[in-house]
Amino acid sequence: MTSHALYTFLDLCGTFAFAISGAVAARQKGLDLFGIAAVAFMVACGGGIVRDVCIGAVPPVGLSDWRYLAAALLASALTIVARPLVDRMDKPVMFFDAIGLGIFAVAGAQKSLAYGHNAELAILLGVASAVGGGIMRDVLLSRIPAILTREIYASAALLGAIVQVGFFYSGIATWWTPWVATAVAVFIRLASLYFGWGLPAFQKRQRLRERHDN
Amino acid sequence: MTSHALYTFLDLCGTFAFAISGAVAARQKGLDLFGIAAVAFMVACGGGIVRDVCIGAVPPVGLSDWRYLAAALLASALTIVARPLVDRMDKPVMFFDAIGLGIFAVAGAQKSLAYGHNAELAILLGVASAVGGGIMRDVLLSRIPAILTREIYASAALLGAIVQVGFFYSGIATWWTPWVATAVAVFIRLASLYFGWGLPAFQKRQRLRERHDN
Amino acid sequence: MTSHALYTFLDLCGTFAFAISGAVAARQKGLDLFGIAAVAFMVACGGGIVRDVCIGAVPPVGLSDWRYLAAALLASALTIVARPLVDRMDKPVMFFDAIGLGIFAVAGAQKSLAYGHNAELAILLGVASAVGGGIMRDVLLSRIPAILTREIYASAALLGAIVQVGFFYSGIATWWTPWVATAVAVFIRLASLYFGWGLPAFQKRQRLRERHDN
Repeated sequence: MTSHALYTFLDLCGTFAFAISGAVAARQKGLDLFGIAAVAFMVACGGGIVRDVCIGAVPPVGLSDWRYLAAALLASALTIVARPLVDRMDKPVMFFDAIGLGIFAVAGAQKSLAYGHNAELAILLGVASAVGGGIMRDVLLSRIPAILTREIYASAALLGAIVQVGFFYSGIATWWTPWVATAVAVFIRLASLYFGWGLPAFQKRQRLRERHDN
Repeated sequence: MTSHALYTFLDLCGTFAFAISGAVAARQKGLDLFGIAAVAFMVACGGGIVRDVCIGAVPPVGLSDWRYLAAALLASALTIVARPLVDRMDKPVMFFDAIGLGIFAVAGAQKSLAYGHNAELAILLGVASAVGGGIMRDVLLSRIPAILTREIYASAALLGAIVQVGFFYSGIATWWTPWVATAVAVFIRLASLYFGWGLPAFQKRQRLRERHDN
Repeated sequence: MTSHALYTFLDLCGTFAFAISGAVAARQKGLDLFGIAAVAFMVACGGGIVRDVCIGAVPPVGLSDWRYLAAALLASALTIVARPLVDRMDKPVMFFDAIGLGIFAVAGAQKSLAYGHNAELAILLGVASAVGGGIMRDVLLSRIPAILTREIYASAALLGAIVQVGFFYSGIATWWTPWVATAVAVFIRLASLYFGWGLPAFQKRQRLRERHDN
């Protein structure tokens, strides 16, 4: 019960953080009131819905639990109403993204394990929970998902999910282990932003040429 | 049984209307014969498939019932064969979209309720049934979903789904209530087109600049 | 058991072939290490995940069986390490795609039949298994799916799935029938590439104009 309550709480924090990032991106692209709320909700719950559908947890909790919708709507309203504030904040999207990233990766992996699935599925669906919403956001806004082109992003989620699954299989999982796993993912992500870490990419020249072509 | 037959009928009407809108958009983008049929089918059944997967109604009826495929193929053929006619019609896409929109929102909400799910899920999946196919169409055609940027569109579906769920929970749901809910959504959508209603959007200037950039 | 082992083997071959095509496309777009692996995995398993979710086979085997992930990672590594080789090969993407296309269409249709679903669902999900991953690849790379605009591609998958379902319903399905169905699809695809076959498209002029606009 306690662990279940913890995951619900983790899920809600991630929902709110991701919704902010979705609403900010949607507003920048000139979407209307409904579009902003829809993208916010999709970023917040999209990854979790994919996870729940894949582990057979239907209906997905993101759709049936009013608190997720409330968190997404609150985040949308905040982004719209506090526009000058959000505009002044330099990279709020990235910061909130990092927190949501770690929380979703760990909670997603944990939920898959709680449903009795294996380590690989838990890790993959942990990452999917974390980056699924962000990928949907970029696909909806018709751009190549930033997640797949730059920096340590999904890799941080991957590490968090692996740590969480490692704790589970090593038998030392307790109340604080999800927080450690989350902290690892968030730290890696924030450090990669601060120090400009990145994974190697290939054919950057090709990429630049294509950008000019468009 | 009667109510079930009614929803099937509503579903089929929506399928045909949406397929027309999908086929028209696909032909305008220069897709080939298969592409047109595929987009038509996806617009027609995409939202319903998402709904069915989320409520655990597998296999999705849009994939297993031949009448949906037949409706989509018929709509594709009509759009291809009656090309000059469709070209002359000013905004056939919008008109057929409005009808499908209302029908899908109400039928989607009703099906979720029939599977024993709660009001929030019914409303969200009603909207998803209605706009899911159109969003897939625009994502496939590599553009930001029109649904999220302009006019009263998904909002009309939202209202229709809310009215339908309201009828259900107030206990006065009968044979004519889905039609009322559908009419509300279709009326709102058509009125918004006629009067140019829209939801507020933000940072339009930003949006215009980006358009120039692309 | 034998037939089940055969489908697993077919699935794995398709996974590897598709992963190569995904990794190549992702590298050309300048994605980073994780992005390449992610797109490779998505192309390889995306269609199969859609199929499994739609027939109620959760968790999807593409996510829970380590061999699929291994095949995708191996293909990514090969594409990255053997870069000059892959660059020199003229159209490796198309060739590997053709093989994966036939394998996935037939295995997808067969799995739907094995789960007791009808012919229509088997054919549709056969095609979805085959082209779903490729469509996700193009959507992620923010371009209109090539599958829907040019040449005999999904049509070849459709034919392969129909042949396989035909064998099943005619009662002569045996160990070699999936190979025949697969060969039909692969042959049609390769022949269409070699001879430049294509399905009719409409309003090509419109399409060219749009290309200039972008």
